[in-house]
Amino acid sequence: MTLLEIIPHSYILGILGLIFAVLLYHYIKRYPKGNDLMQEIAESIHSGSMIFLKREYTFIFIFVVIVFFVLWKAFNINTSLAFLTGAACSMLAGFIGMKGSTRAAVRSTQGAIDGGAPQALTIAFQGGAVMGISVAALGLAGVGLFFFFFTKNPEIINGFAMGASSVALFARVGGGIYTKSADVGADLVGKVEAGIPEDDPRNPGVIADNVGDNIGDTAGMGADLFESYVGSVIASIAIGATMTPHINYMSLPILLIAIGLVCSIIGVFSINILKKFSPQSVLRNSTYISGLLFLIGAFFAVKFLLTELNVFWAVLSGVLSGVLIGLESEYFTSGPPVKNLAKTTESGSATTIITGMALGFQSTILPLLTIAATIYVSYQLANLYGIALAAVGMLATIGIVMSTDSYGPIADNAGGIAEMSKLGPEVRKITDKLDASGNTTAAIGKGFAIGSAALTALALFSAYQKTTNLDSINLTNVQTVIGLLIGALMPFAMASFTLNAVGRAANKMVVEIRRQFREIKGLMEGKAKPDSDRCIDIVTRGALVEMILPGLSAVIMPLLVGLILGAEALGGFLAGATATGVLLAIYMSNAGAAWDNAKKWIEEGNLGGKGTDCHAASVIGDTVGDPLKDTAGPSMNILIKLMAVVSLVFAPLFI
Amino acid sequence: MTLLEIIPHSYILGILGLIFAVLLYHYIKRYPKGNDLMQEIAESIHSGSMIFLKREYTFIFIFVVIVFFVLWKAFNINTSLAFLTGAACSMLAGFIGMKGSTRAAVRSTQGAIDGGAPQALTIAFQGGAVMGISVAALGLAGVGLFFFFFTKNPEIINGFAMGASSVALFARVGGGIYTKSADVGADLVGKVEAGIPEDDPRNPGVIADNVGDNIGDTAGMGADLFESYVGSVIASIAIGATMTPHINYMSLPILLIAIGLVCSIIGVFSINILKKFSPQSVLRNSTYISGLLFLIGAFFAVKFLLTELNVFWAVLSGVLSGVLIGLESEYFTSGPPVKNLAKTTESGSATTIITGMALGFQSTILPLLTIAATIYVSYQLANLYGIALAAVGMLATIGIVMSTDSYGPIADNAGGIAEMSKLGPEVRKITDKLDASGNTTAAIGKGFAIGSAALTALALFSAYQKTTNLDSINLTNVQTVIGLLIGALMPFAMASFTLNAVGRAANKMVVEIRRQFREIKGLMEGKAKPDSDRCIDIVTRGALVEMILPGLSAVIMPLLVGLILGAEALGGFLAGATATGVLLAIYMSNAGAAWDNAKKWIEEGNLGGKGTDCHAASVIGDTVGDPLKDTAGPSMNILIKLMAVVSLVFAPLFI
Repeated sequence: MTLLEIIPHSYILGILGLIFAVLLYHYIKRYPKGNDLMQEIAESIHSGSMIFLKREYTFIFIFVVIVFFVLWKAFNINTSLAFLTGAACSMLAGFIGMKGSTRAAVRSTQGAIDGGAPQALTIAFQGGAVMGISVAALGLAGVGLFFFFFTKNPEIINGFAMGASSVALFARVGGGIYTKSADVGADLVGKVEAGIPEDDPRNPGVIADNVGDNIGDTAGMGADLFESYVGSVIASIAIGATMTPHINYMSLPILLIAIGLVCSIIGVFSINILKKFSPQSVLRNSTYISGLLFLIGAFFAVKFLLTELNVFWAVLSGVLSGVLIGLESEYFTSGPPVKNLAKTTESGSATTIITGMALGFQSTILPLLTIAATIYVSYQLANLYGIALAAVGMLATIGIVMSTDSYGPIADNAGGIAEMSKLGPEVRKITDKLDASGNTTAAIGKGFAIGSAALTALALFSAYQKTTNLDSINLTNVQTVIGLLIGALMPFAMASFTLNAVGRAANKMVVEIRRQFREIKGLMEGKAKPDSDRCIDIVTRGALVEMILPGLSAVIMPLLVGLILGAEALGGFLAGATATGVLLAIYMSNAGAAWDNAKKWIEEGNLGGKGTDCHAASVIGDTVGDPLKDTAGPSMNILIKLMAVVSLVFAPLFI
Repeated sequence: MTLLEIIPHSYILGILGLIFAVLLYHYIKRYPKGNDLMQEIAESIHSGSMIFLKREYTFIFIFVVIVFFVLWKAFNINTSLAFLTGAACSMLAGFIGMKGSTRAAVRSTQGAIDGGAPQALTIAFQGGAVMGISVAALGLAGVGLFFFFFTKNPEIINGFAMGASSVALFARVGGGIYTKSADVGADLVGKVEAGIPEDDPRNPGVIADNVGDNIGDTAGMGADLFESYVGSVIASIAIGATMTPHINYMSLPILLIAIGLVCSIIGVFSINILKKFSPQSVLRNSTYISGLLFLIGAFFAVKFLLTELNVFWAVLSGVLSGVLIGLESEYFTSGPPVKNLAKTTESGSATTIITGMALGFQSTILPLLTIAATIYVSYQLANLYGIALAAVGMLATIGIVMSTDSYGPIADNAGGIAEMSKLGPEVRKITDKLDASGNTTAAIGKGFAIGSAALTALALFSAYQKTTNLDSINLTNVQTVIGLLIGALMPFAMASFTLNAVGRAANKMVVEIRRQFREIKGLMEGKAKPDSDRCIDIVTRGALVEMILPGLSAVIMPLLVGLILGAEALGGFLAGATATGVLLAIYMSNAGAAWDNAKKWIEEGNLGGKGTDCHAASVIGDTVGDPLKDTAGPSMNILIKLMAVVSLVFAPLFI
């Protein structure tokens, strides 16, 4: 068998990867799970997360079934099946990953007691790897399988990306609304009104808050990156199908993510050697090891399949640009600008907000220029295919990137469990340290998510052009300009939806927590237990209701523009949405992270530390930033990708 | 003589209009100017404003001279002269208007004593009309004169628009930074630290604050609208030059603004009949009278010059869209959403900020759709010429629109003077009422400025296409996409520049005011006088230094993009900048105005009124909103127009 004949069987490697993730999950479950109180708390978080996931998936299932029939009617059963499989793979990845995270958190806490920081780190990292490897493996298995069956009708595979995107939107928006309304609600009544510490078990909202960390940062981020991952691969296949020899160009992205999966699994094992070093270096170096191995593999893959190396340089440009955008985000969210931001708390919260906004706006400049440079370079090297392959390059090692990313909420939860089960300052100190390393990787992960979303959206946009056979998307044509303006408006509308939704859902939570403090006798004295389930129920319901409108409009708007204004205007629409979506996403996530870290810096004792006016001002900044960085900002990534993929799938209707 | 032979002499009408404005100025000066204290305060404000203007103009003069020689070298002396004249007209309008405003304010205060609200209103309105009519008249005189000489080389006239735009950028950005840093600085030390009321004469920054109102709202807004006004006319001439019979198409915009000027002057006189009604209806009805008369005139103008009426409907669509955008802004900045926003102060300032942001994002939806609809309709009616004429229609009655707009800061200053000269609650009550009417018109005026900026930018963009003879600005071309992304980035970069600039300049002011309170003995007891001039000097210097970088980059960036990436990419750049610029401008000005009005609503006694926690939270919202609505937001309008006009003028270099 030649390499070209082997590649279509890559889905088998994906299935093996999935088995690895499941085995890893069972391996984690064998770690000691702590005392009764710890187990009880962990079980509440676990079941709360699963309840949310179940209800969310029930809702998404209805949506998926409807779209399944629409696609069947409009196109064929194969596209419908691809859509269904894409949605199912995304949900399955979320499900496995969430189980891994919630099981790992309490064991990581116990690990801190038994074996100190290295043990706690290993467990948390392995928990993250369940998510990371599941995402990578399911992507390869799913796309690979459809590639195997439909090598000659690659437009069928587009349906897979649409399935993944649809789930991602609901997971990201619903999860984002959940996590922030639980957080704001619990803090507002608990910390501010009742004056009890964060993560205090007396607070009825605190379990929901911990559930929210899993839902937003693990399941939401997972679905987001899964979408970018399959989107970039599918865009490359679609563009590759128009080139000669098309089978080589179509096979390359599949081969690259197969190599990426193997390298990611190696990265996960590397922790056994790396764990003697500091937590931060473990997270970083395992990523570097995987990345480097991947580049070596990619070099030979390109050499064998395409003989000339231009495409490899495009892949490399994608990898470098991912790293660069991550570093640029890190500078603005934990470098010197954050200290300057913290100092503005001395003249009050208004100044802190304005300066944080200015910082956020400023932080868009370098990443956007990096994206522009990557587009330019990769296009010069290999035209539109180059842009798509740059995105694939950035995302091929998603297994390890997502592992270090999911590590964050696990470490956060481990700390929460230590606090709630009163394990004392020694244990808390370890979990705090692990949590802090998680925050930096989270910032880089977000930069990465944004960079890959931008490149994937552009790759899908390119695939859309190729599929519609548009010679031009011409801005001297007034319809295209109108499309551009309406597209540019979409992220602004999404921001207003999601921010308002957090406010409404948080408000319901506040009312409920206040009621419990008032009506449950002995709650404040620690003699009675709060009704956490009711809080989880309320915020779940709130988040699910609120995600419907933005979710549907992201699907319907491109269809409307395409049908009313035509294929060319829809091209303008996608370009406009990508431009403002990427900019707003960077602005929001960096401003939010900077406020967060400015607060943390003050809490470390700078400018007088906790309890001062400076600290109070920084808390207001952090509270404002939270829904920006965790709800509205991440929604932008999905929005632009989903709209691009909907346009790509429905393109034949607009011509 | 036929109509076509008369139109090139329209500049004479412009000169007559200017004489009218100067006569009106002298008429206002004959009103009684109050007691010695009032005169002294008014003189400080007047001289502070003039000092700022003089220094600002000195700086702009250097810039203008450099560009004058660049244009001469690159093109010819005529384009240079047009540029110089455009800049001079804009500066002259600012100078006359500022004189009118500062002279009218104190006389309006005295008018409140002598003749109550009607008298105070009349004087303030006439003061505004000095600015309004100057802007309209100078625009007609300047553009008209170059039209007279260069009917056959209309590309020369583009230089006039660039001159106007350059002055506008510096005036808007410099003025915006001045007004907010003076405001924030004076409030922070005066109200918050020293605990003395607003406009208290003991505060060394209070004169600078009052000067700022004139500089930002009068001179800045005047230069902004002057730029839109001449920009839209010049874009129409440039597009008309490519049509047949070109002389008719080129003459129509000149005739329309000539009619608009006459109707505006009639509107100014209408106050003599209207003043018996409420202040708000005076401002509104005088605008309606002018608008209606203009439409009748425009109908006949189109009928005579073009025989078929399509272009008239395009003009009408522009007028209606201006009114609609104004009403939409009014709804979000003083309708029910503002009360909802005010209620969120109950859960603290963070919620107020988040809800205000959501409101701002939401408020972009309707205006953007209105703009899109206007583009669609006017293009269907008369192609690109239709879009340009819609902008001309919106701006033709600028004389009266600007009059009611400039009325705002005059009424505000009149109140400030009443407070500082301790005239008692009776007078203050009248000036407060007049001030409140001014705020609503200001909100509408801002909506109008944004709508016209968007249409003008698109008209200039269309003129750019026609001038460069670009068949397409093609988004399937990767260079165009890169242009689009970098263009979209520009408003974000501008926002970061201007917001940071306010912070820095305000900080210098705070240091100085604190020093004076500490070092000037007897200041707090009212026995010694503050050194207001030093404050004015510091904030003037700060504003002028800070405006240089954003100003220059707005001129240089389009040149760089055009020279490096080419004419087509520059087209993408302009489209991207227009999309994000318009959206950010609406977001910022509406969010800012909503926070402002939420605070005012609470100060009227709602939710407990002044001194409550709700009020404190609303003050933080207002402080955050101030630099958004008065500095960063308005800068966007100029940025997009200036970049479009620079591209238009330098277009021949990029082909």
